[in-house]
Amino acid sequence: MKILTSTPAGDGFLMPAEFAPHQGCILIWPHRRDSWQNGAYAARKAFAELITIIAGSEKVTVCARFEDYDEARRLLPDNVRVVEMSSDDSWARDVAPTFITNGSELRGIDWGFNAWGGLYDGLYFPWDRDNKIARKLCDLMDADCYDLRDFILEGGSIHTDGEGTLLTTEECLLGRGRNPDMSKQEIEEKLCSSLGVKKIIWLKRGIYNDETNGHIDNICAFTAPGEVVLAWTDDKNDPQYEISKECLDILEDSTDAEGRKIRVHKLILPKPVHITAEECEGLDHMDGEPTRTPGERLAASYVNFYIANKTVIVPQFGDENDKKALELLSGLFPDRVVRGIYARDILIGGGNIHCITQQIPAVSKT
Amino acid sequence: MKILTSTPAGDGFLMPAEFAPHQGCILIWPHRRDSWQNGAYAARKAFAELITIIAGSEKVTVCARFEDYDEARRLLPDNVRVVEMSSDDSWARDVAPTFITNGSELRGIDWGFNAWGGLYDGLYFPWDRDNKIARKLCDLMDADCYDLRDFILEGGSIHTDGEGTLLTTEECLLGRGRNPDMSKQEIEEKLCSSLGVKKIIWLKRGIYNDETNGHIDNICAFTAPGEVVLAWTDDKNDPQYEISKECLDILEDSTDAEGRKIRVHKLILPKPVHITAEECEGLDHMDGEPTRTPGERLAASYVNFYIANKTVIVPQFGDENDKKALELLSGLFPDRVVRGIYARDILIGGGNIHCITQQIPAVSKT
Repeated sequence: MKILTSTPAGDGFLMPAEFAPHQGCILIWPHRRDSWQNGAYAARKAFAELITIIAGSEKVTVCARFEDYDEARRLLPDNVRVVEMSSDDSWARDVAPTFITNGSELRGIDWGFNAWGGLYDGLYFPWDRDNKIARKLCDLMDADCYDLRDFILEGGSIHTDGEGTLLTTEECLLGRGRNPDMSKQEIEEKLCSSLGVKKIIWLKRGIYNDETNGHIDNICAFTAPGEVVLAWTDDKNDPQYEISKECLDILEDSTDAEGRKIRVHKLILPKPVHITAEECEGLDHMDGEPTRTPGERLAASYVNFYIANKTVIVPQFGDENDKKALELLSGLFPDRVVRGIYARDILIGGGNIHCITQQIPAVSKT
Repeated sequence: MKILTSTPAGDGFLMPAEFAPHQGCILIWPHRRDSWQNGAYAARKAFAELITIIAGSEKVTVCARFEDYDEARRLLPDNVRVVEMSSDDSWARDVAPTFITNGSELRGIDWGFNAWGGLYDGLYFPWDRDNKIARKLCDLMDADCYDLRDFILEGGSIHTDGEGTLLTTEECLLGRGRNPDMSKQEIEEKLCSSLGVKKIIWLKRGIYNDETNGHIDNICAFTAPGEVVLAWTDDKNDPQYEISKECLDILEDSTDAEGRKIRVHKLILPKPVHITAEECEGLDHMDGEPTRTPGERLAASYVNFYIANKTVIVPQFGDENDKKALELLSGLFPDRVVRGIYARDILIGGGNIHCITQQIPAVSKT
C-alpha cells in the first residue's frame, strides 16, 4: 500500500455510484454496549441477517475485534470473510475508506474521523480505533490510500451519482464539529478534488433528531443518475415536514452535473419511532451518563437502504408504511430484488443499514 | 472459509516442500517484551530487513497487533501488506497455518498450539491469541481450514520434501508437552493423513538447549528431494557433537518415500553463542522471573534459513563460520541468491529466520 498525497481527481479517480457494480462490501461487527442494547445481542442477529443477504451477490468482509471474532465467525455464513480489526463502534459507512477507481484500479480515501463532531458534539471519546480503520482496510486489500485525514468526513454524509454529482447537507458538512476553519467553497473544492465530482447539491438539513448532524444517507439517495428518493411525511405537524419540504424545493430547483433536472421520488417515512424505557435499560452508560433517554425519537428512515449487486436491502420497522417503501423501491430498482429486514435493533444504535455498510466498487481486470 | 473435519490427504492435498514456488509469506511483528530485548527495538529492525528481502520475490503479509500497526507500517516497505492481528508472540512458523494444496487450491491446517509444551514445559501462558491465528489467517485468505486443534503441532517441528517424506524429531513430537496420550504410530498416522506424506524420518534430538524441544527446522532441512543440510560441529567436547552425529547416522541409514538414499551436507555451526548480562537486562521478566540467564547458550544454527522464491536468507552471527554457511548453501541453491542477515537479535527471542516465517505455496490458477 502506498500512501498518496496527490488528489484522486487529479489522478483520474472518482467515486462510482452505489448502484454501479461492486466487488464487495465491508461491515464491522457490533460490540459497543452503550450503542447496542443487551451486549449487542439483537443487533448481531440483524447484522447477520443483512450480511447473509448481501453475501448472496457480493463478497462481504466483516471486521471483528479480537474478542468478537469467534462469535462473528459462528453467526456468519462460510462465504463471508471475517478479519480481526479493532474498532470503537460499528459504522463502516463512516470509518471504512471511500473507494474510488479509474476503471481498472481501486484506491481508498482515508478521511479524518472524529465520531461525528469531535470534542464539539461527537458521540464518544476516544475514536482512535475507528480513525485507523480506513487505512488498515486499504492495506488489507492492497489498495493505495489517499491521506486526507486533515479533512473530517464520514461516508454517510455524501452520495454520488457516478457522473459528477454529489449530494450532501449543510447541517453536517458546514457544522462546527467537522471542519470549522474551512469555508463552504473550500469544502466544495475538497469534495471535487477527492471524489471526482463537478457539481454539489447542498440540502439544508437531514432527518429530524439524527445524531450524525443530518447525514444525507438517511434523508436522500440517488437511485439512478438524475433520480433520487427523498424521505417524506405528509404530516405538517411533524418537525420533519418542514425539513423534507425544504429539501424537495432545493432538489426540484436543481440540475445535476450533466444538466439534468432531478426527478424526486417521495419515500414515505415510518411513523415516528421512539426508544422505550426497556430498550434504554439494555444500554450501558457512557462515562456515567445514559446514551439514550426513554421516549427519545430515533432517526428512522427507509432511505437508509443498501444497494447490493442483485438486491436492495431496506430497513423495516413494523410500520404500516414498511410495505409501501418496498413497493416504491421495487419500482425504482427493476433489476434487483428489494428485500426488507426488521431493523429496529440497528436503529437503536443510531443509524441503519446504509450506515453499517461500505461498498467496494468493481474494477475491470487489466 | 469452510471448517473441514475430513483429512487433507484423503481430500488429495499435501504440503509442498519449502523450495517449491510460493505465492507469499507470513510473519508476525515482534512485540513481546520478555522475548525481545529493549521493547523489541532491535528485533524489529532485523525483521524489517528480512521482510524487505523476502518481499523482493514474494508477497509478504505481516500480522501486527493494533498497538503495533503504525510502527510496523512505518518500518516496512510499501509492497508489504500489514494486517491487524492479535498475538502472544511472533513465531509465524509455529502459529500460522501449515498450507497444503492439491495443485489448484490452497487450504490451511489449524493445528493446536500450546506454546511449545503447554502447562508441562511451555514457554508462556496464556497462548490463546497465538492459537487463534491459524484460523484467522485462513479466513483472511479465503482458504478453507482443517480443524486439527486436537493435535498439538508447530510448523517448526516438520519439514517435507513435497514428494512424500517428512523429517521430524522424537524429542519434540514424542515429548510429554504435546500429545502425551498418542503413540508414535498414532502420531505417524496423523502426520501422514494431514500432510500427504508416506514416510517419516525420525531424528532423535534437535539443537542442544533449543527451548522448542528440538524443532527439526533448527538442525536439519531439505534443500532438494533426497538432500538435506545437517547442523554440524567437529568439536567432540561440545554436547552438540553427539546429537549431530546421531542424526547423521540415522540419515545415512535412511531412504526417503521414493526409495532414495539421503545425501547429507554438513552445515557447520557457529561457535556457541551465549546471551550476555546486558542483553538479559533488556528483557522484561515474566511472572516475576527472568526469561533468560546471563551466559545461557542460545540455539544458534545456520539451518534456520528461509527459502524464498528467488533468495535464501540465512542467519549470521558475526562468526567465522558465517561465510562458510553462505558458501555451502549457495552451492545447494544455484538458482537463488543466498543472503545472510545479522540475526543475533532474532536469536535472543528463541528462534531464527525460519521460525518467524511461514510460506504460502503457489497454486496454479484454474
